[in-house]
Amino acid sequence: MEPMKITNFELYDIVTNGDQEEINSLETLELQGWVKTNRDNGSIGFVEFNDGTYFKSVQLVYTDKSQNHDVLSSLKTGAAITVTGKLVLTPENKQPFEIAVESCSLEGDVDDDYPLQKKRHSFEFLREIAHIRPRANTFQAVYRVRSVLSFAIHEFFQNNGFIYVHTPLITTNDGEGAGNVFDVVTHDTKDPNSFYGRKVNLTVTGQLHVEPFALAFRDVYTFGPAFRAEHSNTVRHASEFWMVEPEMAFTDLEGNMDVIEDCVKFCINYIMSACPQEMEFFNNMIDKTLLERLNHVANSDFKRMTYTEGVELLKKAVKEGHKFENNNIEWGMDLQSEHERYLTEEIVKGPLFLTDYPKEIKAFYMRENDDGKTVAACDLLVPAVGELVGGSQREERYDILLKKMQKLGNDKELDWYLDTRRYGGCKHSGFGIGFDRLLMYITGMQNIRDVQPYPRTSNSIKY
Amino acid sequence: MEPMKITNFELYDIVTNGDQEEINSLETLELQGWVKTNRDNGSIGFVEFNDGTYFKSVQLVYTDKSQNHDVLSSLKTGAAITVTGKLVLTPENKQPFEIAVESCSLEGDVDDDYPLQKKRHSFEFLREIAHIRPRANTFQAVYRVRSVLSFAIHEFFQNNGFIYVHTPLITTNDGEGAGNVFDVVTHDTKDPNSFYGRKVNLTVTGQLHVEPFALAFRDVYTFGPAFRAEHSNTVRHASEFWMVEPEMAFTDLEGNMDVIEDCVKFCINYIMSACPQEMEFFNNMIDKTLLERLNHVANSDFKRMTYTEGVELLKKAVKEGHKFENNNIEWGMDLQSEHERYLTEEIVKGPLFLTDYPKEIKAFYMRENDDGKTVAACDLLVPAVGELVGGSQREERYDILLKKMQKLGNDKELDWYLDTRRYGGCKHSGFGIGFDRLLMYITGMQNIRDVQPYPRTSNSIKY
Repeated sequence: MEPMKITNFELYDIVTNGDQEEINSLETLELQGWVKTNRDNGSIGFVEFNDGTYFKSVQLVYTDKSQNHDVLSSLKTGAAITVTGKLVLTPENKQPFEIAVESCSLEGDVDDDYPLQKKRHSFEFLREIAHIRPRANTFQAVYRVRSVLSFAIHEFFQNNGFIYVHTPLITTNDGEGAGNVFDVVTHDTKDPNSFYGRKVNLTVTGQLHVEPFALAFRDVYTFGPAFRAEHSNTVRHASEFWMVEPEMAFTDLEGNMDVIEDCVKFCINYIMSACPQEMEFFNNMIDKTLLERLNHVANSDFKRMTYTEGVELLKKAVKEGHKFENNNIEWGMDLQSEHERYLTEEIVKGPLFLTDYPKEIKAFYMRENDDGKTVAACDLLVPAVGELVGGSQREERYDILLKKMQKLGNDKELDWYLDTRRYGGCKHSGFGIGFDRLLMYITGMQNIRDVQPYPRTSNSIKY
Repeated sequence: MEPMKITNFELYDIVTNGDQEEINSLETLELQGWVKTNRDNGSIGFVEFNDGTYFKSVQLVYTDKSQNHDVLSSLKTGAAITVTGKLVLTPENKQPFEIAVESCSLEGDVDDDYPLQKKRHSFEFLREIAHIRPRANTFQAVYRVRSVLSFAIHEFFQNNGFIYVHTPLITTNDGEGAGNVFDVVTHDTKDPNSFYGRKVNLTVTGQLHVEPFALAFRDVYTFGPAFRAEHSNTVRHASEFWMVEPEMAFTDLEGNMDVIEDCVKFCINYIMSACPQEMEFFNNMIDKTLLERLNHVANSDFKRMTYTEGVELLKKAVKEGHKFENNNIEWGMDLQSEHERYLTEEIVKGPLFLTDYPKEIKAFYMRENDDGKTVAACDLLVPAVGELVGGSQREERYDILLKKMQKLGNDKELDWYLDTRRYGGCKHSGFGIGFDRLLMYITGMQNIRDVQPYPRTSNSIKY
């Protein structure tokens, strides 16, 4: 009989969730994957084996009677193998089962300079081998959660009737007007106008492009890459990152915050339920408070507070002796992470929407409030991190928007954007989630370089 | 009592699938969306109303007794409105129900130069108003199918245990070495080396970056944008497009083709079941043979034939009097679309994998066959279109790959790619689907400019 091909995932699934009949059906099995460790004690040997389909490894047991014992005993960490054997249940052991090896063939050997040896490596070292680190435990967990979280995002929006829009990456505008854009030129001429007949750059946000779709489909979202040519060498900045940007017609700031809250809770619950092994690993190895923190957020009602109230509370804290690095709290300032974290961690002790920011420190497309000083913006602040999501109600009034854009000088270039306010425009709102930062938040990973497959940060590119 | 907020989709869903109790529960309703047409006959008026959540519009009926009759009677095409009214079932009419309007308020009026008036517009004209065309019937259908098809792709791979990898867009390599890349430079200096310390360009494929992940997770896929700075002004070329690129360890060319076949059938069946209104529309308005063609493919066993056999059949056809534009059929040539279509349409009359192409016309990473002349590549050809998917088994043998790359001169730059063959490499395969072309195929749309939200083609960029 041909051996039955099976993956680590399927094996664990059947042994853990299958009935006796299913388990008995597992006769001779064939596994294909990679050696994590190999320990040969002479008469008996143990291979920790993983094929990447499940976080937990499978133990292969061989003896000096096994076929190809010479191959088995000399297997090196990292080698690709095909192995056949029989399932042996070991309910009294740490692993619920092992595989008694019958034969083994070497699919791909490992050169002696293989950088991922058994010992523990620093994240800094692993960043230098971005093409190998997906095999390390931490990155098996990170990238699996990254994949599942991406799908969770799609599921949340698709199941709520949102239309997914692929907004363009090459564009003529620079979104919020911050100017930190990458230009795109053709290889031969280096002339930015040569290909499209005008200057183009990489997008910093899909929002402007997705708004017209909200005015056609009501609820829409983008989920794609965005770029910032900022020389910010911090643990939270990358020059290329993925963003989720939903946009909803006939929705005000309150409705916007409702969706943000639902979305964040959905993502947390989804990952905790779909990736329990990985989350346990992060909680043990990366951040001991992770699960407690995420559970707290998933079960909290997110508080809402205006920027103005927030500033008052920060002033009060300073007066009462609290020391911030920047103790100079004034209305109109752009709050720093330490201020945001104080509000969410010390004041409300949970997730907090800060709303209605001074218009001078927010983007031109945000809706001006009746006070003439603030805009209908909201930032979601969470303990241990600070800002996680930013959103706003958009300025739907043509005259007010036109004036602001004339001042910025982008009214001509974005005449199509202004059009949407003249042709059946309506109240609408949206938000942006930095996907990589959400992933950092959910995994507890501290550096954006360690959650992206091939991080792009300034002065660093190898792949 | 507050009116109940409801969308077009929810209304159709309850009236079509709900039980009597659910239908009775619909008391006074509130709808928000846009006016498609308005016809006021004096005592009675009809608004064709759509909020973008469902392909079919809802008919609003008002009379000269309705509140805000003046607002209602003067509603213009494109206006955004909030309307309240009562559900009236009309089983004897074309529409199963209508809304008897009680009140209406204008959320956003329409300037008189609104370009999307009731009359039929050419696709060429609509391309000039990419920010407005999502409201036109055809584009409501196209973009909804685009969204659902994206999700279908994710569902197919996620449910089969594939890990989604966000491969980078900014990269140092040009993939297949064709050279048609966009360079990325910083705004200020225009020096391509300034930001990352070396020359970078926009990716043409995620494959090289995703292969190392297949050697860690077994089955993986990318789904993201790719770029080609080709001045190909055809209906099938865009300089920015989305690609799906799966990669599977321990999989040979046969296994690769099995997955391609499953994936294409899954996508077709998914869209036909999830978007029946839209597909009926495409079949009526865009391509009368669409549903028949798709059903045929979904129910066919995809044939497999070598390139060499294909060339023999084409030669035979020429000998027997068939006229191709290029009648000069020779082994070694790159087949043109007319040749591919002849094989799939005339010879096998269904989907066809053409395999084992001459190595000179295929990429360096494809696995050389034992004949020394061909590589283990496969192109999926389908009737009416030609090539839909391209894939190959990858060259896993270090020495052979190194020689090919040294010849191309990319062995130094891609040393990390070569590493994967030294560190537990194994047999592996993958393929690429041009997502926009798959969408064209499934919708029957003939121009790539009409399936992308904001198409980027050479000499054309406005948004």
